[in-house]
Amino acid sequence: MMNLSKSLRILHIRKAKKKAGLPPGSLVHIGKERRDNVSVHVIRYNDQESKNIETENIPEAIRSIDNNCINWYMIDGVHDISIIKHFGDILELEPMWLEDILNTDHRPKVEFNNKNIFITLKLLSVTRKEIESEQVSLILGDGYVLSFTEKKISEFNYVRDKIINNRGQIRQRKADYLFYVLIDAIVDHYFFADEFISDKIETLEENIYSDDQDFYMNLIQSLKKDMIITRKAIYPLRDALDKLVNEDSFLIHKDNYKYISDIDDHILHLAESFDSNREVVADLENLHQSFISNKLNEVMKILTVMSSIFIPLTFITSLYGMNFKFMPELGWSYGYLMVWGYIVLISGSLLWYFKRQKWF
Amino acid sequence: MMNLSKSLRILHIRKAKKKAGLPPGSLVHIGKERRDNVSVHVIRYNDQESKNIETENIPEAIRSIDNNCINWYMIDGVHDISIIKHFGDILELEPMWLEDILNTDHRPKVEFNNKNIFITLKLLSVTRKEIESEQVSLILGDGYVLSFTEKKISEFNYVRDKIINNRGQIRQRKADYLFYVLIDAIVDHYFFADEFISDKIETLEENIYSDDQDFYMNLIQSLKKDMIITRKAIYPLRDALDKLVNEDSFLIHKDNYKYISDIDDHILHLAESFDSNREVVADLENLHQSFISNKLNEVMKILTVMSSIFIPLTFITSLYGMNFKFMPELGWSYGYLMVWGYIVLISGSLLWYFKRQKWF
Amino acid sequence: MMNLSKSLRILHIRKAKKKAGLPPGSLVHIGKERRDNVSVHVIRYNDQESKNIETENIPEAIRSIDNNCINWYMIDGVHDISIIKHFGDILELEPMWLEDILNTDHRPKVEFNNKNIFITLKLLSVTRKEIESEQVSLILGDGYVLSFTEKKISEFNYVRDKIINNRGQIRQRKADYLFYVLIDAIVDHYFFADEFISDKIETLEENIYSDDQDFYMNLIQSLKKDMIITRKAIYPLRDALDKLVNEDSFLIHKDNYKYISDIDDHILHLAESFDSNREVVADLENLHQSFISNKLNEVMKILTVMSSIFIPLTFITSLYGMNFKFMPELGWSYGYLMVWGYIVLISGSLLWYFKRQKWF
Amino acid sequence: MMNLSKSLRILHIRKAKKKAGLPPGSLVHIGKERRDNVSVHVIRYNDQESKNIETENIPEAIRSIDNNCINWYMIDGVHDISIIKHFGDILELEPMWLEDILNTDHRPKVEFNNKNIFITLKLLSVTRKEIESEQVSLILGDGYVLSFTEKKISEFNYVRDKIINNRGQIRQRKADYLFYVLIDAIVDHYFFADEFISDKIETLEENIYSDDQDFYMNLIQSLKKDMIITRKAIYPLRDALDKLVNEDSFLIHKDNYKYISDIDDHILHLAESFDSNREVVADLENLHQSFISNKLNEVMKILTVMSSIFIPLTFITSLYGMNFKFMPELGWSYGYLMVWGYIVLISGSLLWYFKRQKWF
Amino acid sequence: MMNLSKSLRILHIRKAKKKAGLPPGSLVHIGKERRDNVSVHVIRYNDQESKNIETENIPEAIRSIDNNCINWYMIDGVHDISIIKHFGDILELEPMWLEDILNTDHRPKVEFNNKNIFITLKLLSVTRKEIESEQVSLILGDGYVLSFTEKKISEFNYVRDKIINNRGQIRQRKADYLFYVLIDAIVDHYFFADEFISDKIETLEENIYSDDQDFYMNLIQSLKKDMIITRKAIYPLRDALDKLVNEDSFLIHKDNYKYISDIDDHILHLAESFDSNREVVADLENLHQSFISNKLNEVMKILTVMSSIFIPLTFITSLYGMNFKFMPELGWSYGYLMVWGYIVLISGSLLWYFKRQKWF
Repeated sequence: MMNLSKSLRILHIRKAKKKAGLPPGSLVHIGKERRDNVSVHVIRYNDQESKNIETENIPEAIRSIDNNCINWYMIDGVHDISIIKHFGDILELEPMWLEDILNTDHRPKVEFNNKNIFITLKLLSVTRKEIESEQVSLILGDGYVLSFTEKKISEFNYVRDKIINNRGQIRQRKADYLFYVLIDAIVDHYFFADEFISDKIETLEENIYSDDQDFYMNLIQSLKKDMIITRKAIYPLRDALDKLVNEDSFLIHKDNYKYISDIDDHILHLAESFDSNREVVADLENLHQSFISNKLNEVMKILTVMSSIFIPLTFITSLYGMNFKFMPELGWSYGYLMVWGYIVLISGSLLWYFKRQKWF
Repeated sequence: MMNLSKSLRILHIRKAKKKAGLPPGSLVHIGKERRDNVSVHVIRYNDQESKNIETENIPEAIRSIDNNCINWYMIDGVHDISIIKHFGDILELEPMWLEDILNTDHRPKVEFNNKNIFITLKLLSVTRKEIESEQVSLILGDGYVLSFTEKKISEFNYVRDKIINNRGQIRQRKADYLFYVLIDAIVDHYFFADEFISDKIETLEENIYSDDQDFYMNLIQSLKKDMIITRKAIYPLRDALDKLVNEDSFLIHKDNYKYISDIDDHILHLAESFDSNREVVADLENLHQSFISNKLNEVMKILTVMSSIFIPLTFITSLYGMNFKFMPELGWSYGYLMVWGYIVLISGSLLWYFKRQKWF
Repeated sequence: MMNLSKSLRILHIRKAKKKAGLPPGSLVHIGKERRDNVSVHVIRYNDQESKNIETENIPEAIRSIDNNCINWYMIDGVHDISIIKHFGDILELEPMWLEDILNTDHRPKVEFNNKNIFITLKLLSVTRKEIESEQVSLILGDGYVLSFTEKKISEFNYVRDKIINNRGQIRQRKADYLFYVLIDAIVDHYFFADEFISDKIETLEENIYSDDQDFYMNLIQSLKKDMIITRKAIYPLRDALDKLVNEDSFLIHKDNYKYISDIDDHILHLAESFDSNREVVADLENLHQSFISNKLNEVMKILTVMSSIFIPLTFITSLYGMNFKFMPELGWSYGYLMVWGYIVLISGSLLWYFKRQKWF
Repeated sequence: MMNLSKSLRILHIRKAKKKAGLPPGSLVHIGKERRDNVSVHVIRYNDQESKNIETENIPEAIRSIDNNCINWYMIDGVHDISIIKHFGDILELEPMWLEDILNTDHRPKVEFNNKNIFITLKLLSVTRKEIESEQVSLILGDGYVLSFTEKKISEFNYVRDKIINNRGQIRQRKADYLFYVLIDAIVDHYFFADEFISDKIETLEENIYSDDQDFYMNLIQSLKKDMIITRKAIYPLRDALDKLVNEDSFLIHKDNYKYISDIDDHILHLAESFDSNREVVADLENLHQSFISNKLNEVMKILTVMSSIFIPLTFITSLYGMNFKFMPELGWSYGYLMVWGYIVLISGSLLWYFKRQKWF
Repeated sequence: MMNLSKSLRILHIRKAKKKAGLPPGSLVHIGKERRDNVSVHVIRYNDQESKNIETENIPEAIRSIDNNCINWYMIDGVHDISIIKHFGDILELEPMWLEDILNTDHRPKVEFNNKNIFITLKLLSVTRKEIESEQVSLILGDGYVLSFTEKKISEFNYVRDKIINNRGQIRQRKADYLFYVLIDAIVDHYFFADEFISDKIETLEENIYSDDQDFYMNLIQSLKKDMIITRKAIYPLRDALDKLVNEDSFLIHKDNYKYISDIDDHILHLAESFDSNREVVADLENLHQSFISNKLNEVMKILTVMSSIFIPLTFITSLYGMNFKFMPELGWSYGYLMVWGYIVLISGSLLWYFKRQKWF
């Protein structure tokens, strides 16, 4: 049986156990325990050139921000607290944000101060059987972007390759455009999740009249789980992006707000599609319920027809099976024929009755 | 079985596959693959004269905007990206709008800049069995209107004929009036969809007490699909038109806002009618559920009456069918009559009991 | 069977057929076809005198507005487009309003311009079996009130008689007071509809435990229809009156706003009563559903008790009805008594079991 | 059977019958017909002295307002229209308010003018079996408070005794404090209604698994009725008190707004408690529905076990009850034993099957 | 059976009985009767030193506020009214707040005056079987914090130990930071409740397909109770904290608002998690309902298959059990074989039919 609430639960326990009693701003990693190494890449580029350095000496790498370039620090893995702390200390980030980066169960949100814009959102990835949700946090500063992901994600590698190979317009643009491109890469993936849910709904639809109840129930349970995960990614992001569009930050060039607006539009579209899907699922559940009721009716009709016809007949035959000495009918020459007459009469009139009731 | 989510699904897949990873503003056609040629008509008119040219050399046609006339570019088919691009380049339209025109799955919306008003909305057409939704996009500029449709639509041809034949007041008015007339032509069609849904509801109503369950279920499923498509056309348009009414654009003459207001009024009316329909459908579903429950009760009552009467009787006859050597009753002269006495007594009292319970 | 959506449907079809393709402001009568003549009465009054003229020459009657009197044009019937047009032309009314007057399916609303106030609302009349809805439109101008009704309505005749006979304070007041009195006469009638619905609910309540399912189902279906009609009259009017209260028009004297406020209060009360009724109906439907479920349980218990007792007994008697040569029990002297012992034992213990389960 | 909508209905009929057609501000008593005399008490007090006069000459009593005292006019009974009229005429109260005082079905509300504050609210009283609602109206003026109740209510007598005996701080305070104390006395009583509903819910809870369906259904029906009455008292009052808190009237001393705020707090608390109760009731209804479904399952299992075991057995015994001449088994020595073997085998394997299915 | 509404009920009764008729601001303890002594601790600290005094002479302790220190008065137990009164009198607190402190059933809220900030909220503690709710009230003043709890709570002792042992940054900060730390300690505990509910949901999920209906029903009932208690703690606190964040009080240093914001964020997260849980529970209830329906179908299928096959067969055997003198078949040599042929034919075709219907 699938486990609708398990994934959520694990995070909650850890959070409660690890955080309770600590002062605010204490950095604790909350989420799935990971063993893989955290890798930090620095991608430096301008319209002339681009470099991609995998660095070991992280403080050094952070301090050497090149003001003639856009500096993208790509941190894959957030379970090494010391690395997050280096960034926080050297770039003077809000301690609360660091906490949120480490808490991979955090809801999507956007925050501002006078130096940075912070956004945390969910990457939805579709596996063969379900939708999975990962935390991605981005910080935009003057000339740099920091990206924190739970593990390496191919979408960001793809953006990096485009920078290195100078495809698209990223190299010609500023850090705010990179910030936008990264958010867009994540939100574009939501359409896969939306499609995956639509596919599951279609499978559900094809099976609402099926007799394999276990299959139906597992399917609807896993679908509901996918929908909860998707909703938790999409709905708070809608509010967060509204905040981003309406806030006026010097970090984002006025002309680039239309790109953010466009992502906002996508999210709105996704949210509407999601609402439609929710309604379709509710309708299908109703139809399935009606189907079950109808089937019960069918079953009961068969039972009723069979019983109503043969129980009275058996009574008659049983009647003439009695062993009384004085039963005149038993001696009649046409007694047996008379019984058959009864049988035909009774079963015939009952069949006619059930036919008239449109039972078959 | 009808396929409630299929049409939506197809679009999502394509969108996800085609768009993911492209820079913003990249033009990709999203929607049903079409093979028919894209045709571009230019209708030029003023109160004196009118021309209708089907053009091949599109850039030329666009550049030759005649300032003494209203120029209506009627583009039937949006799957030829190059044509859309010509309009975008020459008339300096927002790249995002071109993207939205190509995405035939886009939700209705209105957008402004200081040169144009852009609206995208759905044309609902009623086939014999279901409601279909097509994308229509309109751009109003100074002296021109662009209309982008997925295929030729008769409503716009009808407007064109009125211009050519100088019926109605279009020829006497400016581009904003044409813009209004085109929106009105589309919204007027929503009443057909509304009527179609009302008809289906009536058919549903006539069949909630029918025994043809398959028919009922297919009907309700197709009705729900129609309602989702209609709602997706009407509800976002309500917000979009509100925006249009409240925005103050030099492109629309102050006196003509009342026309937009009137369309807004229609949409409000449609939305209310839609809400009523939704409620009626929910009520009918409840009634059907009650009907099914009642029928089960009826079936069970018949079974119970038949079984309750004949099973005890069969027990009695079966009793005197036993072969014991010493069964005094078997020898009695009135033994058989006694059994008939029991039969009359038992069946009579049970019938009286069921009658008193008002079972029949 | 009652037809929940029929009345609504008819209007939609006509609207769609007649209106599609016409320019805005085209006057088309939408609603039930009527054959009776349209009558136009002019009631002229001031605190001194009053006149009631049934007029044939309508343009003349309109032009002869007497500035020393309040002029009430009472138009009974809206299917003669030419009459409506005369008023529109001579009094320079908004063309959109004329369209709304003719569309008897229009939702209640209030509109202003700098010369007139326009209100359209529903008159609910209670017949023996159902609630019917008619369109009433009122226009308040400087010194005159126009009232457009689908047919003669007794409420307005009653107001006219009061003017002629100088009862109440209408003669002492201005046109705005007449405007208020007419709206009040209509809204007062809503209480009859509210009462009618309450009565139906009471009948429903008395029959939720009845066995006449058809009666129950027809009742609930007709009740739902009444409630939809009532809601469509009350809910939009609430918003419309709010608009009227908050708008500041020179046509309504400041002191008279409290009267409008009072109607608003009534509508609020009606809307709350309506919401309560809706909740009561939902509760009753739930109770009925529970009742049906319980009844099924009762039926099944009887079947189960009868079957569970007599089927095993029949097995025993049938056992000793076998014709084997070697069945020792058949020869026993007390064999028959033994069977009776079994019968008493089995039926007794089953009865005791069902008793303990509180089945009867 | 209890009558969920009856009490509401009676009022509506009367309202409709009496009011329709009367001019606004016409005073008509709407509500239960009462025969008891209306009594008017005048309580005059300041920090020095207090008087309680039952008066006959009402106009005289009203005119003799003592400016050195707080004057509380306590009118028990609102069905004598002439008395209400005296107050309205002499104190120049809004005519609309007098109408609302007489309409004992009016929803709670607060209104202001530049001389008075008017509040009308519901007194909920708990009888042995149900909650009853009465109308109380209060008018605060400069130096006086008017209280209108449908009949004598003990809560106000209690306040009067406190004034006479100079208990509490009322004597030291102004009219606004008395106004607050009277509202508080009514709202405090809502907690009894809340408690009464909680008690009924507890009784319901103890009986959701009971077999006495009639008891359960009557209980839930009466509970729903109580909840509708309570909600109609609490919810509109919440809005009314918000209006009172936010309005700035010279009649209420700035320091005393905190008392009004406190009542507002109580109402908020009551509304939340009410919402919780509503949810609990919905949950209990669901549980009851599940219980009924489960019970049906249990009943059907018993029927199925009994039938499935004994019907095949009876077939076998019936088989050997046939009277064919040539039935070899009948002559076998162990034929009878063989049948018993079949019986044990069949019943054993069916019992094992049902056991494995965990049916008992 | 668990008692969903009991705990709420007890408080209501007491409130109604004790409070009705008392003047506002009267101090009455409302809640569970407690017998344990109330203890008052004074924790005085600054960055230099810290003292923890358990005091008997409470007025003395209150008056001796040390202005060089942060003074934390930790009152464990609110049932001793005199102690609460001392604080109210000496520190000139709002009388209404004292009332709210004593009413342990009060909903969470925040209030301000120009000297103090008052917050009352719920501590949720998780026992082995259910969630319990206790009232905690905090008052922040200039240089002091008062904490009122129903009984000693370990969370506050833990904070005290940190102060004494100078762990964390509390000693270096002002009273507003202590105020924040105490609220944070309580809200952090909500995650345990959230986790507890998630665990119960998981248990529920593992048992929705179980046959132990009693277990399932008790589980869902206790889960619903936990959710109501949790919701009553979380939802009003969200509004209260919003008020705290938006209000600008000199008592909280501008830099510390971000901490309050962080708690607000946690509450938002909890509310969303709670909403998800609610949805999951609703889905599980639906699945359970489907499961019950399916099981009924299974049971009925077995009954129908068994009855439909054996009842006709028994009719045939019973037919040849009749004792007519003239029944030709009885004398046939292959008569018995013929019956077996019927049996095989009938049962075979019925089995084939049921197989085709996919009944097993």
